[in-house]
Amino acid sequence: MRDFLPADKARRERVLAVIRDRYRVHGFDEIETPVMEEYARLHAGIGGDNEKLAYNVLKRGLDADAVRAAADDPARLTDLGLRYDLTVPLARFYASHRGELPTVFRSIQIAPVWRAERPQKGRYRQFMQCDIDIMGDASARAESELIVATLDTLDALGLEGGSVRINDRRVLDWMLDSFGFTPEERPGVLITIDKLDKIGPGGVAAGLRERGATASAVDAFESFLNRPMTLEYNPYGERQIRKLLPEDAPADVVAHLVGIGDAVAAARAATGPAADDAALADIPLVFDPFLVRGMGYYTGTIFELAHPSVDYSLGGGGRYDGMIGRFLGQDVPAVGFSIGFERIVDLVDATDDAAPISVVLVHDRDVPPSELLAHKASFAAGGVRVRLEHRTKNLKALLERAAADGYTSFATVSGGTPVGGLELKPLA
Amino acid sequence: MRDFLPADKARRERVLAVIRDRYRVHGFDEIETPVMEEYARLHAGIGGDNEKLAYNVLKRGLDADAVRAAADDPARLTDLGLRYDLTVPLARFYASHRGELPTVFRSIQIAPVWRAERPQKGRYRQFMQCDIDIMGDASARAESELIVATLDTLDALGLEGGSVRINDRRVLDWMLDSFGFTPEERPGVLITIDKLDKIGPGGVAAGLRERGATASAVDAFESFLNRPMTLEYNPYGERQIRKLLPEDAPADVVAHLVGIGDAVAAARAATGPAADDAALADIPLVFDPFLVRGMGYYTGTIFELAHPSVDYSLGGGGRYDGMIGRFLGQDVPAVGFSIGFERIVDLVDATDDAAPISVVLVHDRDVPPSELLAHKASFAAGGVRVRLEHRTKNLKALLERAAADGYTSFATVSGGTPVGGLELKPLA
Repeated sequence: MRDFLPADKARRERVLAVIRDRYRVHGFDEIETPVMEEYARLHAGIGGDNEKLAYNVLKRGLDADAVRAAADDPARLTDLGLRYDLTVPLARFYASHRGELPTVFRSIQIAPVWRAERPQKGRYRQFMQCDIDIMGDASARAESELIVATLDTLDALGLEGGSVRINDRRVLDWMLDSFGFTPEERPGVLITIDKLDKIGPGGVAAGLRERGATASAVDAFESFLNRPMTLEYNPYGERQIRKLLPEDAPADVVAHLVGIGDAVAAARAATGPAADDAALADIPLVFDPFLVRGMGYYTGTIFELAHPSVDYSLGGGGRYDGMIGRFLGQDVPAVGFSIGFERIVDLVDATDDAAPISVVLVHDRDVPPSELLAHKASFAAGGVRVRLEHRTKNLKALLERAAADGYTSFATVSGGTPVGGLELKPLA
Repeated sequence: MRDFLPADKARRERVLAVIRDRYRVHGFDEIETPVMEEYARLHAGIGGDNEKLAYNVLKRGLDADAVRAAADDPARLTDLGLRYDLTVPLARFYASHRGELPTVFRSIQIAPVWRAERPQKGRYRQFMQCDIDIMGDASARAESELIVATLDTLDALGLEGGSVRINDRRVLDWMLDSFGFTPEERPGVLITIDKLDKIGPGGVAAGLRERGATASAVDAFESFLNRPMTLEYNPYGERQIRKLLPEDAPADVVAHLVGIGDAVAAARAATGPAADDAALADIPLVFDPFLVRGMGYYTGTIFELAHPSVDYSLGGGGRYDGMIGRFLGQDVPAVGFSIGFERIVDLVDATDDAAPISVVLVHDRDVPPSELLAHKASFAAGGVRVRLEHRTKNLKALLERAAADGYTSFATVSGGTPVGGLELKPLA
């Protein structure tokens, strides 16, 4: 867990303001839930491995007997926990407030989550998540809205050129079935396939054999992976999707994936150069039939956000049509996209181009507070950010520090100057 | 703990943006600390009664033996807790990062805190605090900067006419000494005096006798409270401060209080009509020699924010010169002012005057996603907030709901209209 000093905090708030604004413009509405949820809800099996990483809150008012009675089941010491993601709270929120929300509800959540991870580089125990979700729309329109809003937000942050790797859990499930894996083997097989990028087809096949997966299925899978083909992902579209899948892949899933591509292409074309075939070829989508995504709750489309400047994903999401039903007792289609804020904030250009004039008033120690406050109030009233500083022996260091803190100008106050009469000088 | 739906969340974010902006303009810099602090730090006796209300986090990896061993001291089950205020974390932050901060450091903290309070009207277990603090300045300038920034923020929120009740703990301590109360009696006496507004001089005297306070001191105090005088608080200034105190009140404390008044008056005059005697008479300060404030850590000036529209305080603060020394081993003067965000947010006018045009696109079910996304992207690219809605049988209800959600216009999309060709109509 980290402290944020002023420069870092200002940068984070600037990036969050852009994200919030772009999501809002795309018709999403921000909500907020408490940081604590009931223990039972956080441990209902939806959160996958993250459940084990939850911080649990000690029950209030426990006496010695109650503690002793809980010795063999420490879960009885807790009734609340800090959320480890924003999806479980959203499903609970939607189930609680459905009657007050539009039929198709597009939510923004920009908020911290907590995981008791082992400390390692680039991982934090408290970190921000920026999620958009659409509830109540099963069509490809929902995925398209999420993808277009996310790529537009990336553009607005100066990170043009982003793209989305996309797949569908139903494609994966169908492929594994068709190779001959049993439904019981599926979770383990998916974990191994998830490493395809790193260990290659041979490594995956070896890993599956090690796991003791059905031998004939592993053989069929290996020969599919090794079939001679150009892994030329683009242009995204039906022809290319079919080329990367076994024949007779389910038509409805392929049509859903194609529909997303058409809509994303149309949106990009409407805001870019004239919509012609060249623009269509530039759909910022990449079909990857072996994209897995870790969470167990995904039921359909899954995606990951990529950017040419980094070799790791900047976000991801997918469809989880079954989850809200767990809370509501009635299935509601849902799909979400989460931006990896902590990764993106380091990539964004730090300079604040729009920084207006701001002033440091360097004053001698004996200038009365009333004169200093009058000068200060007069600048602040005009919207000019202003900071008072005692003059120190090392004036140069003081001014350099003010410039580093984002101030643009300074004036010296030695007493007796009327309000409005200070001479402003630029900070180097 | 509460969920916030879109309308409430938008209102809260608007108010927070105004507060953040005004504080920044007055030269304060925002920082952020983790929501969890070490248990020992949260229970070091600084947080007063709030320590008992802290949510404590269960240690990870406890086994049955460890739980049993902790039965008689449940504090051993926890190592972290959720912060109950922003002052203890700030003192820890300042002690950790002093070398990276300006000599006089002006901080903004806008963040939630948690207290396991019994549910009651208007109190929440998770609520926002908005604090500004100045560390490293012992002069009246610091209090003046806080008060001017706070009143300006209240003005910017449309809550003109706020004022600040002010006192100094040293005044109280000195008065109680001079009446003959012992230092040991002081905390109990202060708790009773805190009720003066509600129970009057007779009630306070009776309460003190009930407590068994030194009889001669209670007599002296009662006759002071009952002395014939006009409790005419204004105009704020030395003459009036001295009139409300026993003779020979400590001159340095009176001078500090007068200095704050001069500086606040000068700041208000510099931004209002010409500074003349009338303006000085309107200093938005009220000296109240019996203002107490609950927290034990205050060492000097204390203040509360008042507004004519409500009979409760909208915020408060004071000087706590001793606290940072507890963490740093070296005393640093510090003073803070906290705005009661949860109280203020309900008083602020909810309408968003600056709301720009925003559009609901009502579409038939069979319009292809690609056409809808192209229209949507084209509006969003121009910064126009846009939401897609299926046409429902009750179009009127749909449009009313969109207007209630803040949308200004709508267009119907039945298919085939080129991008840019939709006809916008105003929402009632």
